[in-house]
Amino acid sequence: MVVSSESERFIADINTDFPEWYQDVVRKADLAESSPVAGCMTIKPYGYALWENMVRVLDDAFKETGHENLYFPALIPESYLQKEADHVEGFAPECAYVTHGGGKELEERLVFRPTSETIIWQTYARWIESYRDLPLLYNQWANIMRWERRPRLFLRTREFLWQEGHTAHGTREEAMEETMTIVNLYRSFVRDVLALPVFMGRKSEMERFAGAVETFAIEAMMKDRKAIQAGTSHFLGQNFAKAFDVTFQNEKGEREYVWGTSWGVSTRLVGTVIMGHGDEKGLSFPPKVAPIQVVIVPIYRDDTRDRVLGAAHELAKDLKAAGIRVKVDERDQLKPGFKFNDWEMRGVPLRMELGPKDLDKEQCVVAERVSGAKSPLPLAGIADALVARLAATQKAMYEAAETFREANTKEVDSYDDLKALMDEGGFGLAHWCEGSTCELTVKNDTTATIRCIPEELEGAGKCVVCGADSPGRVVFAKAY
Amino acid sequence: MVVSSESERFIADINTDFPEWYQDVVRKADLAESSPVAGCMTIKPYGYALWENMVRVLDDAFKETGHENLYFPALIPESYLQKEADHVEGFAPECAYVTHGGGKELEERLVFRPTSETIIWQTYARWIESYRDLPLLYNQWANIMRWERRPRLFLRTREFLWQEGHTAHGTREEAMEETMTIVNLYRSFVRDVLALPVFMGRKSEMERFAGAVETFAIEAMMKDRKAIQAGTSHFLGQNFAKAFDVTFQNEKGEREYVWGTSWGVSTRLVGTVIMGHGDEKGLSFPPKVAPIQVVIVPIYRDDTRDRVLGAAHELAKDLKAAGIRVKVDERDQLKPGFKFNDWEMRGVPLRMELGPKDLDKEQCVVAERVSGAKSPLPLAGIADALVARLAATQKAMYEAAETFREANTKEVDSYDDLKALMDEGGFGLAHWCEGSTCELTVKNDTTATIRCIPEELEGAGKCVVCGADSPGRVVFAKAY
Repeated sequence: MVVSSESERFIADINTDFPEWYQDVVRKADLAESSPVAGCMTIKPYGYALWENMVRVLDDAFKETGHENLYFPALIPESYLQKEADHVEGFAPECAYVTHGGGKELEERLVFRPTSETIIWQTYARWIESYRDLPLLYNQWANIMRWERRPRLFLRTREFLWQEGHTAHGTREEAMEETMTIVNLYRSFVRDVLALPVFMGRKSEMERFAGAVETFAIEAMMKDRKAIQAGTSHFLGQNFAKAFDVTFQNEKGEREYVWGTSWGVSTRLVGTVIMGHGDEKGLSFPPKVAPIQVVIVPIYRDDTRDRVLGAAHELAKDLKAAGIRVKVDERDQLKPGFKFNDWEMRGVPLRMELGPKDLDKEQCVVAERVSGAKSPLPLAGIADALVARLAATQKAMYEAAETFREANTKEVDSYDDLKALMDEGGFGLAHWCEGSTCELTVKNDTTATIRCIPEELEGAGKCVVCGADSPGRVVFAKAY
Repeated sequence: MVVSSESERFIADINTDFPEWYQDVVRKADLAESSPVAGCMTIKPYGYALWENMVRVLDDAFKETGHENLYFPALIPESYLQKEADHVEGFAPECAYVTHGGGKELEERLVFRPTSETIIWQTYARWIESYRDLPLLYNQWANIMRWERRPRLFLRTREFLWQEGHTAHGTREEAMEETMTIVNLYRSFVRDVLALPVFMGRKSEMERFAGAVETFAIEAMMKDRKAIQAGTSHFLGQNFAKAFDVTFQNEKGEREYVWGTSWGVSTRLVGTVIMGHGDEKGLSFPPKVAPIQVVIVPIYRDDTRDRVLGAAHELAKDLKAAGIRVKVDERDQLKPGFKFNDWEMRGVPLRMELGPKDLDKEQCVVAERVSGAKSPLPLAGIADALVARLAATQKAMYEAAETFREANTKEVDSYDDLKALMDEGGFGLAHWCEGSTCELTVKNDTTATIRCIPEELEGAGKCVVCGADSPGRVVFAKAY
């Protein structure tokens, strides 16, 4: 739809009403909308392109690390889900059930996959016989259904898109190494591609994936200083192998249970980028995933229209050939000033303004979304110049996000200070005794949770809640 | 799983038991398997890679023709499906229903999408206001559920993967042009990438998509001389616009109903490639979609193992750099001869044999899957030589398929000849009066159907069934 009035462009103040700001930018930038199917979303082309750009980079990275894609059915017999006790306890309340098919009631209800460990391990039991069959390093891109109570676009929707890796190994060490390879891959991806720093570490027992021995996660800070879990990698130990009787014959001819991992990132990453980089003007996308990296806004009157539009399209062709995702804004009914604001709100990293006088001078004007800087650039060699500016923007966005996170991350050494910080907003690095009681106390008092237990924060101290010994600080924050 | 015995490699005779041959190659080449969820399939990495290669080419082609991807929910309220009368009649019997979610019975049953016209046109009603919003040229990659009674891997499974394009236009002409653009794109894709010739044309009223005004299809000949519908493009007229009240204001300020199209290809294309090119040795994949284009089989004893494997991996690196999908078969427990047969069965276009004597002579031996030819090639410049051979194989496979189709396509001018040909197998080009009665007579007598009504066969004659006037020949065949 065409944005056709000032009111359509108005977005709530990011500083005073973050939730409303989020809804506004998602809707007004045409990223996604709530579907008439309660809790599900329609991902619009601009939002989907963002996801596609992420998918491409991640898929390449998975393949480079030896993984192959495959595809398991979306519907899982209810009885499979019940085989792993923790797993069913965690997921059953969120499940959606298919009960009728082809005009008949089914003999057994089928669950629309909330995650695929059960059907996959049921299958691995048939695929794995010997140590020669290991490891299995498989991934699938799929849609997932979890009956969320309070859905929010991209962050928590009943249906969402994700990738789920499911690997099988002959030893504990190898499975643990895979778990860490992936969480590190996720960390690099979010840092280098989404331009956001993360804390990476173990989850506490309370926050662990249902059925895992250990869960590792990456946690990024959003602009409202809350945390978002951007990706998880689970060491499953032999839990699913035991639940589905998946064994292999080792080199000595003995049967052993297989070791497993699973890991995933989802369309939540789109929400992560929106809330990690947005500002009072709206969205701001890192060039590496921006659906449009450079928008050309032609400036013309009736008598210069053909000349300017012609030049704009020629330029666009050159930029495209240089690998830049470019769009010419040809909307005749809108004024340039409106378009400038519109593309700023939509988060396009670079805007090129091109009028007849620019063409006379063989130049254009380039405005940067992040810095707001605007300056003329010669048309000769423009593609190279823009490639360099996109790289600089990518770097600047990471640095800004890092500065923001550092300014809002504090070491706290008393429970009062932790409570005050959680109230104010930000990440609190505090000592914790590793006890669920203290963890629950913090959660009940502040709604904040332990986001992760990073190895980098090791170093003894005393739990801020109970004063008992602590092996290191953990990251406390309110979270999405 | 490792192929470890001769019996594992045995496949049924393609000439005497085609259905069994199909099952054997799909299973033994690890393309896919039936899932424990009745009627659904698990697509294994080798089969999924074939699909991924198709997806990449198609997705690029859609984008080059101005289409964008997006994503609609998988679950559709039952009431939407009921809004277009023909549509619900066609699809309701095949639907699977979600009735419970989040521990509660739902107020309205949700259908797992059998196709997405209804939810999409319900949404287009909100997205389209003015002629300025048109055309909408959208596509989605998604999973689909149709409760098939007699499922067959890739050909007819309850869940399958596909893309579905859904476009909206301001005029009949533009929508019809889009319909034709896509069916022509599908034809080019199947011809140039899957190396199969197709007949392209309209469907008869009986065979039309439920809810369409016209359906255009491409029909390829399989090795058992049956037809497969490989892709369809539907001109929807204003049917869905009227059902969902989707109007736009034209340039004169008047409200009109929007014109629509929808079109799709699915994982059925994997079955199409298998049955279109396979032979008595098993699969044979066109290089452009083959998951592995060149397999290197190292030939060594204990004392030459390191040298040969080292050289094989160096070579593989060079080939990969030249854009070739290559694999080194390192399975120590299997003999070279076994591997040769195994990769032939799996349809890899080129096999490179590499032993210590070859290395001494700075050469390798290259065997072609299609021709069976085997000859030495110098290692210097090997990447270029293999790229050229892959292109030649692609061309040869198309030509062989065309020759096969021509040999099994006959003009028939009497009903007895048509019946005899349908009995024998092949495509019959016969005159038809355009009446459903004659069409049904043929179907009842022979199980063959009118696959399409190609424009290229125009030219008057007399219906082979009733003798009435016919505007041109149509393609009769038994079909998948």
